[in-house]
Amino acid sequence: MAQIIDGKLVSKKILENLSDEILFLAQKPCLAVIIVGNDSASKIYVNLKKKKALELGIESIVVEMPETVSQEELLEKIEQLNNDKKVNAILVQLPLPQHIDTKIILEKITPLKDVDCFHPYNTGHIAAGTKPYVYPCTPKGIIRLLEYYNIPVEGKHAVVIGRSNIVGRPLAQMLLNENATVTICHSRTKNLEEITKTADILISAVGQRNLIKANMVKDDVVVIDVGMNRTEDNKLCGDVDFYNVEKKASFITPVPGGVGPMTICSLMQNTFDLYKLQNKNQVT
Amino acid sequence: MAQIIDGKLVSKKILENLSDEILFLAQKPCLAVIIVGNDSASKIYVNLKKKKALELGIESIVVEMPETVSQEELLEKIEQLNNDKKVNAILVQLPLPQHIDTKIILEKITPLKDVDCFHPYNTGHIAAGTKPYVYPCTPKGIIRLLEYYNIPVEGKHAVVIGRSNIVGRPLAQMLLNENATVTICHSRTKNLEEITKTADILISAVGQRNLIKANMVKDDVVVIDVGMNRTEDNKLCGDVDFYNVEKKASFITPVPGGVGPMTICSLMQNTFDLYKLQNKNQVT
Repeated sequence: MAQIIDGKLVSKKILENLSDEILFLAQKPCLAVIIVGNDSASKIYVNLKKKKALELGIESIVVEMPETVSQEELLEKIEQLNNDKKVNAILVQLPLPQHIDTKIILEKITPLKDVDCFHPYNTGHIAAGTKPYVYPCTPKGIIRLLEYYNIPVEGKHAVVIGRSNIVGRPLAQMLLNENATVTICHSRTKNLEEITKTADILISAVGQRNLIKANMVKDDVVVIDVGMNRTEDNKLCGDVDFYNVEKKASFITPVPGGVGPMTICSLMQNTFDLYKLQNKNQVT
Repeated sequence: MAQIIDGKLVSKKILENLSDEILFLAQKPCLAVIIVGNDSASKIYVNLKKKKALELGIESIVVEMPETVSQEELLEKIEQLNNDKKVNAILVQLPLPQHIDTKIILEKITPLKDVDCFHPYNTGHIAAGTKPYVYPCTPKGIIRLLEYYNIPVEGKHAVVIGRSNIVGRPLAQMLLNENATVTICHSRTKNLEEITKTADILISAVGQRNLIKANMVKDDVVVIDVGMNRTEDNKLCGDVDFYNVEKKASFITPVPGGVGPMTICSLMQNTFDLYKLQNKNQVT
């Protein structure tokens, strides 16, 4: 039976340290979140971020803009936040309405406040094996989990399924920078099973229930499940057939309680790290 | 026996089209090359670029700076070229002297004149699957070769050996963007042979003679050899045991005459593409 990778526990510990560090700061770190329109899921996510920030003593500003906001108005708002010394981190809640070019919006955020690490300047550093200001939240959370459980990455074959800009692509780069041999698979991949069977570390970030079955993994594989799906009876589940894969794996993340808690944890850590960078930069 | 991928032929055709396009331009594209110090290899490369540009009707400016140049002087020179409307493309010949931080220098080149595609803004777009202003020269040349010989990439397993920022890393991203399943191997990779045997397209960019032997590839593999090494009798050779691997491969690049000619070809194409982008941007 695999050891369960407990994201709740790890994130709790990280956040405790973080709140200790923030406790004695005269000026608190500040995260600005822009939300456009009335998407209910987006509102839930934004409220979770606001609540978590509050718990930690991180100030949060939520900027609500109407569904009908123009791209120019949104760009102006970001420019305002870029120039606002009080704001350390800027997050634009996605998705944005159809009439807005998300790429242009995300590139408007100054890289030093790019808390999600979506700006090409920051992703480019990851791709080059050099340091961005901060790393993207979910991949960063996954690396932290591997570190916490002392799971070696160097020289291992890491197979990443899914090539989103939020998880798959940056995570593959970050694992490469940790000296893993990395394979990235996706919807056009043929013989997925042949490749997953060779994985020492298997990360699934697809969003397809039961994509990864026991016959697709080798013994003692480390399984990281980034999927977020629902069962018939509306229970949360990942991409992995947990019940059967757990029997073969050496480590495995559950859903919920695995990668999920790490993402918001990284967001808070990134906000604090940007705060430190900006204050350091002001001093020097 | 494999079909030989003839880089001389393909680059010749591309450059003929390019010179035709340039012929009737009132103002010619302009490439600025900065060379620091007296490294003889660097001087040879710079002269090759200058000569090729001249052949095509591309103007070239070679800025020679002494080995002792300060980082600040170099940054000032780049700033000058960034602001010089006549200059469309800027290339800093590497390597730079020890006392200069190459990363800072390359980031100083404005992304719209970054002809080598080394700026994080541009590499970040490749990593995100979006468009940089231009693609890095050698990877771009390799993609052009695959296109020219109608070698399908989508759904194929491409194995890239080597993770340099000049070839391996960006090429892996570009192949992913072409919907290949991509594995990137490097010095820390264990059981390289097990992975290379699964490759439909195998690219070696290591610089180690006879790294890739016939028993490491499957039948009908497509082999792209980016290596540039010397035999005992000082003949140029690549990373691949060409004589034996050719018998198993469906396509293979020779060294010399394979990837090599494509790199300078891409540099010229990139200079022209940046010229077009800048003039388009001026108009709009």
